[in-house]
Parts: sequence; structure tokens; C-alpha cells
Amino acid sequence: MSTQRKYWGWGYEDHKIDAKALKKTISFLCQALNVENKIAQHPLPIEEIELREPRFQLNNTISMICSHDRYDRLSHTYGKSTSDIVKGLRGEFPNPPDYVAFPKSESDLQKLITFAEENTLSLIPYGGGSSVVGGVEPTKSTRYKGTISVDMKHFDQLLEVDETSRCARFQAGVYGPALDAALKPYNLTLRHFPQSYEFSTLGGWIATRAGGHYATLYTHIDDLLESVRIVTPKGISETRRLPGSGAGPSEERIVLGSEGIFGFITEAWVRLQDSPKYKTTTTLLFKKYEDAVNATRKIAQSGLFPSNCRLVDSLESFSMGLGDGNSSVLLLGFESASCPVNDKLNQAISLCDEFNPKQIQDKDQQTSEDANSWKQSFLQAPYLRDELLQMHILAETFETAITWDKFDAFNKRIKSEVQKCILDTCGSGFITCRFTHVYPDGPAPYYTVVAKTEAGKEIEQWQKIKDVASNIIIEMGATITHHHAVGKDHRPYYEQQRSPFLTNILTASKDRLDPKGILNPGVLISERDE
Amino acid sequence: MSTQRKYWGWGYEDHKIDAKALKKTISFLCQALNVENKIAQHPLPIEEIELREPRFQLNNTISMICSHDRYDRLSHTYGKSTSDIVKGLRGEFPNPPDYVAFPKSESDLQKLITFAEENTLSLIPYGGGSSVVGGVEPTKSTRYKGTISVDMKHFDQLLEVDETSRCARFQAGVYGPALDAALKPYNLTLRHFPQSYEFSTLGGWIATRAGGHYATLYTHIDDLLESVRIVTPKGISETRRLPGSGAGPSEERIVLGSEGIFGFITEAWVRLQDSPKYKTTTTLLFKKYEDAVNATRKIAQSGLFPSNCRLVDSLESFSMGLGDGNSSVLLLGFESASCPVNDKLNQAISLCDEFNPKQIQDKDQQTSEDANSWKQSFLQAPYLRDELLQMHILAETFETAITWDKFDAFNKRIKSEVQKCILDTCGSGFITCRFTHVYPDGPAPYYTVVAKTEAGKEIEQWQKIKDVASNIIIEMGATITHHHAVGKDHRPYYEQQRSPFLTNILTASKDRLDPKGILNPGVLISERDE
Repeated sequence: MSTQRKYWGWGYEDHKIDAKALKKTISFLCQALNVENKIAQHPLPIEEIELREPRFQLNNTISMICSHDRYDRLSHTYGKSTSDIVKGLRGEFPNPPDYVAFPKSESDLQKLITFAEENTLSLIPYGGGSSVVGGVEPTKSTRYKGTISVDMKHFDQLLEVDETSRCARFQAGVYGPALDAALKPYNLTLRHFPQSYEFSTLGGWIATRAGGHYATLYTHIDDLLESVRIVTPKGISETRRLPGSGAGPSEERIVLGSEGIFGFITEAWVRLQDSPKYKTTTTLLFKKYEDAVNATRKIAQSGLFPSNCRLVDSLESFSMGLGDGNSSVLLLGFESASCPVNDKLNQAISLCDEFNPKQIQDKDQQTSEDANSWKQSFLQAPYLRDELLQMHILAETFETAITWDKFDAFNKRIKSEVQKCILDTCGSGFITCRFTHVYPDGPAPYYTVVAKTEAGKEIEQWQKIKDVASNIIIEMGATITHHHAVGKDHRPYYEQQRSPFLTNILTASKDRLDPKGILNPGVLISERDE
Repeated sequence: MSTQRKYWGWGYEDHKIDAKALKKTISFLCQALNVENKIAQHPLPIEEIELREPRFQLNNTISMICSHDRYDRLSHTYGKSTSDIVKGLRGEFPNPPDYVAFPKSESDLQKLITFAEENTLSLIPYGGGSSVVGGVEPTKSTRYKGTISVDMKHFDQLLEVDETSRCARFQAGVYGPALDAALKPYNLTLRHFPQSYEFSTLGGWIATRAGGHYATLYTHIDDLLESVRIVTPKGISETRRLPGSGAGPSEERIVLGSEGIFGFITEAWVRLQDSPKYKTTTTLLFKKYEDAVNATRKIAQSGLFPSNCRLVDSLESFSMGLGDGNSSVLLLGFESASCPVNDKLNQAISLCDEFNPKQIQDKDQQTSEDANSWKQSFLQAPYLRDELLQMHILAETFETAITWDKFDAFNKRIKSEVQKCILDTCGSGFITCRFTHVYPDGPAPYYTVVAKTEAGKEIEQWQKIKDVASNIIIEMGATITHHHAVGKDHRPYYEQQRSPFLTNILTASKDRLDPKGILNPGVLISERDE
């Protein structure tokens, strides 16, 4: 298999979707939307794409670590949102980075910072490039003479393991699979599996507050980060390795979610776990969605902390061939490295008794297939989106978190208004919901929109739907993002959500740490000249 | 019983220590240090204390909410550290606040801010006044014409309960017992019990990142805070109620630990829990401390999350009459509101098998007495310190957190160098250790120093010991405080611990939010003219 990644979309160039469930999903969607099950749009050969010449010259100090190779520049022009993929498929790359840097040391980063400050350039800290919110795109501001995208891929080493405290120090450019491979000899795992896992980096996870795959407890990178090292225009800082501290506001929590506007994350100590030895899962089917939500809430508030507690609504279950296709499906699982977990599962199930769910037994073939399908689907889903877009089917998601008291009204309104917008805008399509994470005080619902698109209008069509959803999110007290970050795309909504207190903190800190505003302009906070 | 609190020390004026264990402790200490078991020093009658006149006049707008009553000013001059108590007992109050304000509304706070800005005064956000780090003391800087201590006690209401999400909105001046009493009708609890519980407030807990009584998981106020409201010189902000969010750096985590330098915390939504129904405890005795530490670490890394996991070293156990007086004692407990916890206890115990501890059975009289003694002692300990100081016995603590890999060397060095300093400085005394909290990556050790002091030299004697400990803490990679905050006293060490990154964030944010520097000057970061 080629290890060359697509310049225009997710993952490797010649990857073929092999998850059975996803193939079923494609067939189902094509039939439901009356679209031919065949790739209709292919990307241009890379040499045919129009590409602007670099707008400035490098100096000798940094030219050795910078590339103006066509593939490098094209593949660093966009993240991986629907509009990114569509533009990529169309061959539209009007605002590429002028160069892509591949620094190998903190000293390289400092040289890039100096050069950018002296020449009024913007620098984009680039991890795996999996942003779906415009987090790695060059600024369009004319204030800057150009942009260098700074790919951290050479910062890929495991530097130190502390087996006693179960922690490891990694360079921040390490990708998910390489991180786990490096830990394998120690029988330890970070146990952090965002959907982007294969093509995202530790530094990217930290900068964007990545959510892991697990439903409760230690799943967000926020909780797994012990200390962090960052190169800013004002120097290099490293926070102290501490299991806990009450000394001032948490330093790590300010780096977490900073999306590259303060500096480059170069290293981190992360908290590891023993690999789970005990696992158990089950599937519960509920006739009424309301019952399923209440049961899920009871489990979320029980202190049992399931590793999986994924409530999938009936339409999404149906479209994925999960359960009986007619019920809301709760995928429930427990894991532990030290103790059997069957009792926990039984306790969780008994909390649902009053809602009388149908349990599909553990050993039932259906369930193991469900569980396997789910895992395959989870990691291959981003490939699916590319392929569907090539068939002119929009398959995009938005996600949030909201307290339990507001969820019912919120969910009904989102589903009804987004469904209406889908029909008005696209003619056919639907919206579904699952919970990715559950907290004692609320769920993190994850919505999938599938719709037939009109060639040439995909971006505007999706934007209309996304705007309807985003406005409801802000209006009804949810968050504009639970684990996809803010970037440039969510910023107008984030600015309504963010308190004036934090706006003052972020802008004052930005002025102090990056006085020339060279780092990732337009992300998270407004650019100087806006 | 009087509800008048001591102007010079902890709690109510006529409180008598009634915990049997503490009485035993007093006898033991007097004997061990060869000190007479009798109060030797009494506070002065309040009217005999020399008190400077207020250095400025109030205007009509705020005079109605301000007091210059002798008791109010004296009782707001200090926090509750050893040096605070000693100065109080001596009747030394050279730098009292000029007034104490008792605002009733956010508008009152804004009037105070305006008055302070116009007249170059400092304002001290004052919760319960339980700071042991100089967090509520007036500045000595001549830059200010005076100080108003702003007591938040009228902000004491429960405003809203969301039973579905199990959250409540409180005004931030509410004290621990009042907060729990207000929640009782809902069968909900915050389950946050810092040792200061009786005389500290929700707003104080947030400002100082209070640690709760429980050993693992949701015990710190950091994790229990859902949203917060703050009045700053630049306006009022309220963060959004969210169970989780990935939109930018966490707003709450910047308020947490800000120690009043950015504004007054006026309200907060907190995450509640059902009251535990299932509880079980046991006591394990280990002959070797090293074994006890390793066993505790295994439990901390097991994912079992005990509510109590308090490893008490043999000397502290002996001085408290715990266990057999000759072993390290691990007090282990589990609690749950939804499920039996006996299995968890058994699993935790079996993790210790290889170290062959002696278990004192649950139903053994000794243990229940131990558990009760412990609770009584825990809440009454601050009273004990006052009484011992009145007998010229120093009984003070310092605390930290450190990763497991470093703990052994750290603990040995701290114990040996502090013990040496105690003997050099005081002639007789000792140091003991217990863990207050345990994390997968390290413990939070809490050290108690007991020593005979010389009348008139108590402060200098303690300061020498504290400096030895603080220097080792900083040098060996621990934190200057795990749950006592920074204040003015820890600041010189905190400045060595804090990364330049956070220094820039804090000072830039301070300049932006409080440009005249009126809020709690000298706490956390240096004053303008330093």
C-alpha cells in the first residue's frame, strides 16, 4: 500500500474501505437518497493544479528546513472538513502556504519565529492536519507577506518512560499509532483514541483538547496531560511534572485548547495506563428514545464509569445496521486492567430495569459483530466521507455538549430545524444522533447529517445546514464544540459563547506572548486588523 | 455556644476540643516534648489591642456597607497560618484593613471597585478567611492609601437547583455547612469537605483550588465547578454551564486558583452527587513503609478509586493512637450512592497481598473507633493547633504533590533535613507524613511538624523549618502547594516553580483586567512596585 497521503482528503491515496459495515452503509445511503453507487468525481492529477508561486524568498538559515514542493504545499493548504475536501476535489487551492517547514529541533522553531517576525509572515503549527474547523489554513489577511506551514512530523520520538508513575515524555509531533507502538514494550498505553487517531499527533490533541474514544472518565487529553513544553516568541517554557497541584491556575489547562496561537508544543509528559485485561460489553435496545436517554443519564450519574456508553438513535442505528433497526441502541462496555468488570456491567444494566430494554446477550453473534463493526467503522469513517462526497453525498457531523435538563428540548429543536433545512437546501437527506461521551451533568451529542448534494454547490449547502445548527447551539446554551476545536470556522459562534473574562485573558496573553501576531492568525481570536 | 468567632484564631471563641483522639494527642505531645499540659498564653481582651485609625475616609456610596468596628478589622487582619495565630495571640495588628466591607450585591462590589480605583486603595476578596498562606492580608506597599477587606458573607444563597443534571447555583459567599444544609431537601451533596469546611466558602474554595477530603476522583473543587460568575474591574462575566467543552482553553480553570487577583467570584454552578448509601472501610498495617507506599501506589493505579486511601506513617500513627503504633497505617474506604462497594474493597486489599499487611477487620472495635476518631480529629485539627500554640507547642503542616518515581528520595530527604532543622532550631520535635490524596502518577504527601517553641520566637522558628522544606520541594520537582494555595507566603517559591509562559499569561491578564492593580496586591504575582 502506498504511504503517500492524499493531497486533497483523508488518509492514504490508495486506501480502499474494507469495513463491511461501511460498505453496507454506502449501499444503504445510495438507495435511500437515490444516488448511483459509483465514484462520480475524481481529484485532478497533482501537476494540473494551479499553484501560486511563493510570495517571498527564504534566507539561508531556514531554507534547509523548508520545502516549496507542489505536493507539500497542496497537502498543507487545508484541513479535513467537508468544504476542505470539496475544494480539494475541485482542485481549488488559491491560498496555499508559500512554504512548508519541517523543523527538527526547537532551535529550528526559534529560527522560523525570528524570520517570521522580521518579515511579517504567519506561521501555522501543523500536527497531523486533521482539523475540521479551519485550524491549519493560511490567513487571507493582507497584513502578512506570506505563510509558512510548520509541520512537526520530525518531533516523533519517545524520550523517556517513568514506569513507576506510569508516564512518558514524547515529542509532540508523534502520531497516534507510533505513540502506541513505542509504549508497547512497556505494556503501557495512553488509551486515547480520537477518531483522527491514525493521522493526528500528540501536540495536535493537546492544542485542540481532543476527546478520546471512551465515554467517561480519563478519555480527554486534558486529563492525560501531566506537563507540556512550548516554544513561544517570548521563549521556551516547560511546566513541572506533577500529579496534582493547587499552585495558581493550571498551566497545562491554558495550553490545552490554545490551538497554536501562543506557540509550538514540542514535548509533553502524558499519563499512561496498563492495557485493559478485563472487558465486557452489551447492547440494550429501547423502544422509546426518551427512556434510552433517561437510562443513559442514570448510568452516567452512577459512578460506574463505563468505557463505552454510546446511545445511538433509531435512525442512525438503522442506517448502520445496528440492533433491530427500530430501537434506540445503547452500546455499553466496561474495561479494567486490574479487576473483573462483569459486576459493573450487571449493575449498569439493572439501573435500566425500569425502562425495560431488550438486551442482546454478550455471546450473541449479532453483538460481537456489532462491536467489531463499530470499531472498524469508527476509524474508517473519515475515508467514508471522502468517498460519499465523490458520489455527491454529503456526510458531515457536528457535535456539542449540553446539560441533561436542556437536552430534550435542544435535541428536538436541532433535529426538526436541521431536518427542515436539509430538505429545503438539498431536497433529500436526514439527521441522526449518538452520544460520544456522557458526564454526570450532561451528554455530548454527536449529530450526523447525510444529504444529496448538487455538484458545485456542496459547500454552500452544508454551510446553510451548519449555520442553522450552530445558531441553535449558541442560543440554547450548548457549546459550539465538544471536541472539534474552534479554528477559524467556529470562531464567530465561539465569540458569542466565550465570556468577556476569557476574551480579555486570551487577547492580553496573545499580545504579550506573540506581540507581532505571527502565530496561527485568525484562529480562536480575531486577527489584529479585523 | 457563642457564634462569635475568635478575632485571633480558628473557629468559635468558646469552642472546647471534644474529640477524644485529639485530647489523647495533646497529652501525648506534652509528654513527648516535656511541656506542661496547660494553656500558657491567652489572647488580649479585644479592647486592649492597639489599632491604627483608618487612613482614609469613605464616601456616601459605600459607607453604608463598610464597617470600621474594632472586631471586624482585627478579625480580618490575618488568615489562619501559624504566624497569623501567633501574632494574634500577641496582640500584634500593625497593618489591619482600614475598613471591612460587607457587600450585598454585585452593584455593591462595582461601587467598591470604582471607589478603590479612584482613591488608589487595595481590595481583598475575603471568603471564610481560612487562608494559611497570607492570602487575605492587607498589602504593606506604600503605593496604596489603604485597604478594604471585602467580606462576601452576605452572598450566601442557594439560587437554583437542576435536579436532572444534579447541579446547583449558589452565591459564592456560602459556607460549607450552609451549602450542605441547603442541598439536604434535594438529597444531593457537593461532597466536598476540605479541612476548613466549617469556616470557608464556595468562592474561597474556587479561588484557591481547594482539595476535598476524599482521596481520589471527584474531590477537588476544580472538577466540581460547572460554571462561575466573576465581577472584575472590566465588568461582569459568567461562563456557560457545560458538562464538557473543547472550545478554547477552559474558562473555569483560569478562575480556579486565581486567588482574587482578577475579581470577585459571586456565583457558581456546582456538580452534585447523590449521598453515598454504601460505605465500607478497613485498616491495613504494614511493617515496612516502603511496602505501604508500593501497595498504595498499586491501589492508586488500579482504577478502583477509593474514597479514602490515607497512608499514615508509623510515627504519625503512633502520635494519634492509630493502628498498633508500630506500623504504617493505610486507611482505606469505598463509597457509592448506587452500588455495593465490598467487592472493590476486597479487590483493593488483594492488590496488597504481596506486601502481607495485617488487616484490622471492619467490625473490629479498634477500626470503627479509628474511623470515628479520624473524622472528629480531621475537622477539629485547626482548633488543636491554636491550643497547642497557646502551650508553646508548634504544630504546623506543609503539603505537596510529587510523582511516584521521585517520592522515596524526596520523602527521605525532607524528613531528614526537616528533622535536623527542628532539632537545631527548637531543641525537640518531629516530623510525620500522611497522604491526603493519591493519583495514578503520584501521591500528595502532607507533613506535620510538631516542636517545642520558645515564647517570642515561634514565627522565626517555624519560618526556618518551612524554608528548609520549601527549598527541597522546589529543588526536587514537587509543588509548593497541593491544596493550600500560594498567597503572599508561598510566592517566592511559586515564582521558581511557575513557567515563564504562565507568568506572562498572569501578568498580561492582570494588567488588562485590573489595570490599577487594586485586587489583592502581592498575592500570586508580584506587586507593581516590587
